[in-house]
Amino acid sequence: MSSPSSATMTVYDWFDGPYPARVRIAIAEKGLQSRLRFVPVNLWTGEHKQPAFIAKNYSGTLPVLELADGTLIAECTAITEYLDNLAGPPTLTGSTAREKGLIHMMSRRAELELLDAISVYFHHATPGLGPAVELYQNREWGLHQRERALRAMAYFDTLLQSQQFIAGDVFSMADITVIGAFIFAAIVKLDVPTKLSALHAWHRRMQARPSLQAWHAMVEATRAT
Amino acid sequence: MSSPSSATMTVYDWFDGPYPARVRIAIAEKGLQSRLRFVPVNLWTGEHKQPAFIAKNYSGTLPVLELADGTLIAECTAITEYLDNLAGPPTLTGSTAREKGLIHMMSRRAELELLDAISVYFHHATPGLGPAVELYQNREWGLHQRERALRAMAYFDTLLQSQQFIAGDVFSMADITVIGAFIFAAIVKLDVPTKLSALHAWHRRMQARPSLQAWHAMVEATRAT
Repeated sequence: MSSPSSATMTVYDWFDGPYPARVRIAIAEKGLQSRLRFVPVNLWTGEHKQPAFIAKNYSGTLPVLELADGTLIAECTAITEYLDNLAGPPTLTGSTAREKGLIHMMSRRAELELLDAISVYFHHATPGLGPAVELYQNREWGLHQRERALRAMAYFDTLLQSQQFIAGDVFSMADITVIGAFIFAAIVKLDVPTKLSALHAWHRRMQARPSLQAWHAMVEATRAT
Repeated sequence: MSSPSSATMTVYDWFDGPYPARVRIAIAEKGLQSRLRFVPVNLWTGEHKQPAFIAKNYSGTLPVLELADGTLIAECTAITEYLDNLAGPPTLTGSTAREKGLIHMMSRRAELELLDAISVYFHHATPGLGPAVELYQNREWGLHQRERALRAMAYFDTLLQSQQFIAGDVFSMADITVIGAFIFAAIVKLDVPTKLSALHAWHRRMQARPSLQAWHAMVEATRAT
């Protein structure tokens, strides 16, 4: 995912961040690569907490999408909602009211119970991005969220024993959210218990998708430079 | 909002809860009152943390929408997404890709920085729902989120100095999220600073909407019984 010259939109992100991964995977699933360029914001130096970036996103989180007219869209689900409705029928956020409701619920649940919980664990109960960036830590809260994430892994395993995807019968934004959680879990070395076989089987199926293979290849190539 | 006999959908909620208010206001904005009935789940006895309710919503939060076919949709934004797409063009979650993206971003930002922050303050740094329900509290984290909410009030005030609504030019789900925050702030006696005049002016405009007036009337009538 280099910067094609035909790009009309910009994504501010960090190449191997778990939240940025969600948007990069959504872009690949939608086949929109040629319309986006990527500008790095260095997480490890806390560039996302500096005034220049806070002006783009009040919450100081990555990624942020900038449209050709300068409109800024933060939050992975909001960016995905935008990209999914750009052209043609939406494929990641649902077509019918029922699909939209279920996908939004499951993506939110995957954030609340799993991905965000792992993020809080990382930022509060591990060194996180280092002392210059982690200006406030609450270790007890971080460890509490680690337990929450482990419970959620068991929940999603049970769910996947009777359905193919996180929100039901079709691949969606909710799957991408849980994929992001696996990426973050690997970074913080929070093992997904081996006994959660339905969850692991789902994850193997996800890895076979071209969008995931492209993401892993990009990360490996970037890390090698 | 009693239970009309023509109702085909059920909302499990608690009449004056700030999160339930978001969905009740959305229902009124969409004119869907006749299609929904309400079943109380007692927050103050922790009914939402009991196994019977956890089976409906893993996260143990209110409200939950149950469709005629038994489908369960939790999370206010997901329920709103469903109701908004039921019939006719969506009016609360945006029509164009850009509107959808901006509304979802601003609603998420209002949750993350303001409403959810006030909720965490309530549940962790005040008696919350009482010792039988609040089985784990982290007071320091609660106080930290209180500060976050106060900062967010100032942010939204600045925003509203140059636009009519939270997500721009039109009323949306994002306004409802901030309305929910005002409802929660009143419960926890977290005053919105008087100097935030644009935020207060916006809130007065919101109170004039029929959906808000109906909600306040319902709460007063229910409390009086």
